[in-house]
Amino acid sequence: MDIQSLREQHPDHWKKACAIRALTLDAVAAANSGHSGMPMGMADVATVLYEKHMVFDAQSPDWPNRDRFVLSAGHGSMLVYALLHLTGDPEFPIEQIRNFRQWGSKTAGHPENFLAKGIETTTGPLGQGLAMSVGLAMAEESLRARWGAKIIDHYTYCIAGDGCLMEGVSQEAIGLAGRHELSHLIVMWDNNGITIDGKVSLSDRTDQKARFAAAGWDVFECDGHDPADIDRALTEAKASKGPAFIACTTHIALGSSAQDTSKGHGALTDAKLIADTKAAYGWTSAAFEIPADVKKAWEAIGSRGAEARKAWDERLAALSDAKRALFQQQFSCEPPKKLASAIRAVKKDAVEKMPKVATRRSSEMVLEAVNPIMPETIGGSADLTGSNNTKTADLGVFDPINRKGRYVYYGIREHGMAAAMNGMALHGGLRPYGGTFMCFADYCRPAIRLSALMHMPVVYVFTHDSIGLGEDGPTHQPVEHLAMLRATPNMMVFRPADLVETAEAWEIALGAKATPSVLALSRQNLPAVRKSHTNKNLVAQGGYILEEATGKRQVILIASGSEVEVALKAREALEADGIGTRVVSMPCMELFAQQDEAYRRKVLPAGAVRIAIEAGVRMGWDRWLLGERGREGKDGFIGMTGFGASAPAERLFQEFGITPEATVAKARALLG
Amino acid sequence: MDIQSLREQHPDHWKKACAIRALTLDAVAAANSGHSGMPMGMADVATVLYEKHMVFDAQSPDWPNRDRFVLSAGHGSMLVYALLHLTGDPEFPIEQIRNFRQWGSKTAGHPENFLAKGIETTTGPLGQGLAMSVGLAMAEESLRARWGAKIIDHYTYCIAGDGCLMEGVSQEAIGLAGRHELSHLIVMWDNNGITIDGKVSLSDRTDQKARFAAAGWDVFECDGHDPADIDRALTEAKASKGPAFIACTTHIALGSSAQDTSKGHGALTDAKLIADTKAAYGWTSAAFEIPADVKKAWEAIGSRGAEARKAWDERLAALSDAKRALFQQQFSCEPPKKLASAIRAVKKDAVEKMPKVATRRSSEMVLEAVNPIMPETIGGSADLTGSNNTKTADLGVFDPINRKGRYVYYGIREHGMAAAMNGMALHGGLRPYGGTFMCFADYCRPAIRLSALMHMPVVYVFTHDSIGLGEDGPTHQPVEHLAMLRATPNMMVFRPADLVETAEAWEIALGAKATPSVLALSRQNLPAVRKSHTNKNLVAQGGYILEEATGKRQVILIASGSEVEVALKAREALEADGIGTRVVSMPCMELFAQQDEAYRRKVLPAGAVRIAIEAGVRMGWDRWLLGERGREGKDGFIGMTGFGASAPAERLFQEFGITPEATVAKARALLG
Repeated sequence: MDIQSLREQHPDHWKKACAIRALTLDAVAAANSGHSGMPMGMADVATVLYEKHMVFDAQSPDWPNRDRFVLSAGHGSMLVYALLHLTGDPEFPIEQIRNFRQWGSKTAGHPENFLAKGIETTTGPLGQGLAMSVGLAMAEESLRARWGAKIIDHYTYCIAGDGCLMEGVSQEAIGLAGRHELSHLIVMWDNNGITIDGKVSLSDRTDQKARFAAAGWDVFECDGHDPADIDRALTEAKASKGPAFIACTTHIALGSSAQDTSKGHGALTDAKLIADTKAAYGWTSAAFEIPADVKKAWEAIGSRGAEARKAWDERLAALSDAKRALFQQQFSCEPPKKLASAIRAVKKDAVEKMPKVATRRSSEMVLEAVNPIMPETIGGSADLTGSNNTKTADLGVFDPINRKGRYVYYGIREHGMAAAMNGMALHGGLRPYGGTFMCFADYCRPAIRLSALMHMPVVYVFTHDSIGLGEDGPTHQPVEHLAMLRATPNMMVFRPADLVETAEAWEIALGAKATPSVLALSRQNLPAVRKSHTNKNLVAQGGYILEEATGKRQVILIASGSEVEVALKAREALEADGIGTRVVSMPCMELFAQQDEAYRRKVLPAGAVRIAIEAGVRMGWDRWLLGERGREGKDGFIGMTGFGASAPAERLFQEFGITPEATVAKARALLG
Repeated sequence: MDIQSLREQHPDHWKKACAIRALTLDAVAAANSGHSGMPMGMADVATVLYEKHMVFDAQSPDWPNRDRFVLSAGHGSMLVYALLHLTGDPEFPIEQIRNFRQWGSKTAGHPENFLAKGIETTTGPLGQGLAMSVGLAMAEESLRARWGAKIIDHYTYCIAGDGCLMEGVSQEAIGLAGRHELSHLIVMWDNNGITIDGKVSLSDRTDQKARFAAAGWDVFECDGHDPADIDRALTEAKASKGPAFIACTTHIALGSSAQDTSKGHGALTDAKLIADTKAAYGWTSAAFEIPADVKKAWEAIGSRGAEARKAWDERLAALSDAKRALFQQQFSCEPPKKLASAIRAVKKDAVEKMPKVATRRSSEMVLEAVNPIMPETIGGSADLTGSNNTKTADLGVFDPINRKGRYVYYGIREHGMAAAMNGMALHGGLRPYGGTFMCFADYCRPAIRLSALMHMPVVYVFTHDSIGLGEDGPTHQPVEHLAMLRATPNMMVFRPADLVETAEAWEIALGAKATPSVLALSRQNLPAVRKSHTNKNLVAQGGYILEEATGKRQVILIASGSEVEVALKAREALEADGIGTRVVSMPCMELFAQQDEAYRRKVLPAGAVRIAIEAGVRMGWDRWLLGERGREGKDGFIGMTGFGASAPAERLFQEFGITPEATVAKARALLG
């Protein structure tokens, strides 16, 4: 269908859709950067979706039972901002559109969930939005089963481009969605045949419809510019039994001279091009101006869901006080009051029994205490359940015949798992955790970064955290991973030494509202190092004095996780020789860095040799070795300088020199 | 077919296959760890492949025109080791099998390419082997077109498990293979229906055959225990026009009590289970013993390709001296002699013209000089060609109608690209480089790590290396990525400041034989900072004095890349106030760390305030700020402490305080 026919056959629709297009052209021109083509191409689909299908209330954009809209092709952010402005979201007056991509605006280059309530999720790294949509839809299924359809019952809509579909994470996501028959998930593919480098066919000839069908999706298609056809496809997709994939045939940068070209993907800023395009649209308003009737029509769409939202408010109010309070606690991400006592009980028991267990097993013991009192947790593993120790009794398995199940078999899909957890956390009402081997944090790096950027308190259970895993060898042995994770802003990386520290780490992770956590856990058994109970959470200080020096303090050994044992043994030997040695356990550098200087100086005072011990690279430790002003820097590090190797773990610690003996020798050498 | 029928119908085949199974059981039992089920399940397929199809010579395992065999399901490493031992590879006497997974052996838990010539590639991180196989097959197509089928003409065979197929990277790889119609690539899927967590159907119900067909593959299937059926399928697959996918129906841990269970995936070490299994096989030899007739039959297989190899030697010898020398130079990964003068010419020209260009453009200028004299380079980008500046004139585009093309449109597939580059480098004869935005290094982290672990001199062209990219915002702005990359062992991370440094970085990267390189390049224009020519490669020292202090040296500013400009401007202001200030350019920390202590002390002497400036996190810099013994630590850092934001780049540098003014202020504060 050509533009002229579209204008004539669907004049009201056309004006609404062109409001999106005009705002996009104006905002990109003003910013002199951005991506015009995608919103211009998908404006018709978005208009029909919002006008006829999306259940939302522009005045209450964070209402828990709203339909979710995820723009996986996040570079087309002006589509989101135009919809928010047009429908009357109070956070998006026209000034926001005028300030597209400027410092301090809510209209960032890519959508950022933390800038406004109406932005469901950060997108931009391709494929993430699609994979988070799967998590949103899983959360919806899970919560509908728990709370009933009167409280939670909505769709998740996602627009994905060719980039999203080419990224590997898309396959992990669609496999997961197909397996779980997520019928409330609808993905609209912006099938415009163009990528940045040129035609899609330059790099890909995949039959996407066949691919999605192979993964168990119901597949539909439509002319992405014909509102009646779009409406039909969306109606059919909503009735599907599995997740729905709609191939929407569209023209990128519709109506401009850059239509159907890769030039159309980017910023169209040429004044004549813009004028010609608006003329083709029949759009005569000045820049950033929307005709009153068009704005009114859009605002009517924005208030279309207000009654549904009010009715929902009433249904929520009709719940018992206890149930409503629970709902609100879970959706506000507050930990339950019982958490503190449950953790305390684990700690007390640990100090009595001093179990020598791997911290991955310690983590399981904590989860055994926590999961029964925190029904909002939803656990899982990327096919390493028995190794990650992530599944506790009575969780049940989440699948189409048991939506109440709280454990997800994610399959060999670390990336899909991490992105799905982000989606669940974005949804609200659930607190996801998931496991894999720490080395395979690499596979989900893009999604881990988004947890941190989006302020999602997801918990990553990364076991097998060093050469201590032994024979599987260097492909499975993390070396640089602690540094990589610690370098990431807004993330807490915990490497606990025993059950007590593991319990304290979990308590912090489960209490976090805006920060993801990593638990770096050992495969191998470790002795208990905390010998007396205190109600205080010492891990919350990041680092603390575990054993004090006898007599004059000449050496401070700082270690984390499995190497705390090495430090304690080295201390014994040094003390036996009259060398006063303090051991500092450092389970979380980020939290230690947040302590005030007085505390940090107390734990790491000047005037002693310092040695850090960790079976990873040195990067990140220098800060604590030499980073205090005025220190002399007589410090050392015991750890890895290259990749690991395949051999029994004890042999590896010997060969790589991560031993009490090597520590003692280094201390002596530094003391001179 | 049951075991009894197999034994009776194919007795010779059965014994050979059971030799693999028996060695697997013995080695895993001796190591008390490992993965028994996969080699037991795929022994029949491997036996038929080696007996009837693979062209190889066990006495010459690195012959350039051999067929490649990649075990993507790397945990089944005993399959590889058994094949190498049985066929008579001189590096794999039975002692190696006895020392499976022990310190110093070549039989590591997962195959490691650097331990023996006969091990094509490191595998273990799932999906990587499959994706590297695509790179191997691309290399073969490319080299066959360049050298002719008399010199290069072989197949790449890959065994992949369900884990490989569930990992997202597999989709990127199969899309790439389908697009490029890689008819010499044959993937055998170990379709045993089992993963670690249980049945595959717990987590995945994808129709894999339909999925591969959708990506343009030719799809076959066979009974993975029936040698005749396996042979038929392989014969058909070799004749296919596209890449071939063979679904081999198999039983994991065949013949043991753990058959068809997830227990069978891991280490079968129970003595009775092993005895019962061998009895079911009719295998009566002692542990680690192979009946002489069986060993002889396998050694005959191992020498089956010797004649083909000799004939190839003769064909190579028949080439002109110049051509043969070129072949050998390229396969030995030596840079051509012309490289040094080409780089010198770029540097001389740069110092004359002092162009103010982005380092991504500088990189393109270097490639324009290098690509014509290094036909072994093969470039590409993950759909950011114009942004990464990776495509130079006359490269041609690699595709089915132009196999000689030297530029690959990888599509939006960073992970598939990186893994394919690893495969090309493993093949030999090509030197791959590929580009994406630096932030999306995250998407290919697992493959980058393998470049380093496997000693592959792949070059990663990572542009848009900081907040300097501006409006695209925090999802696209690297902050922690330099730290992540620098933390990785055996990697050179270059962040050049101008064209001269970029040329020097490329010279080092293209001269490397066993170390991958990252080029971190700016989007924004940068002034030339090297004002006089020297033939010496200063970047090779990692860090060097760019501008000396006038008079007494009170301050040393250390910077990389785009922040060298900030340092130079700050120096000007400080010097104007009589504060002697040295500027050290630090384009490669890894190389600086390799310099001797005298040099490092010369560049970074004690007795001055040091400030490092880099638009990334501080982690990694502490080493140069406070890491020198005896220093007082009056040091500072100008950089990022959290994620970036969306705004024009200049505004971002202002807001985040990465400016000459902030540097001057910090210097004054530190001087007190």
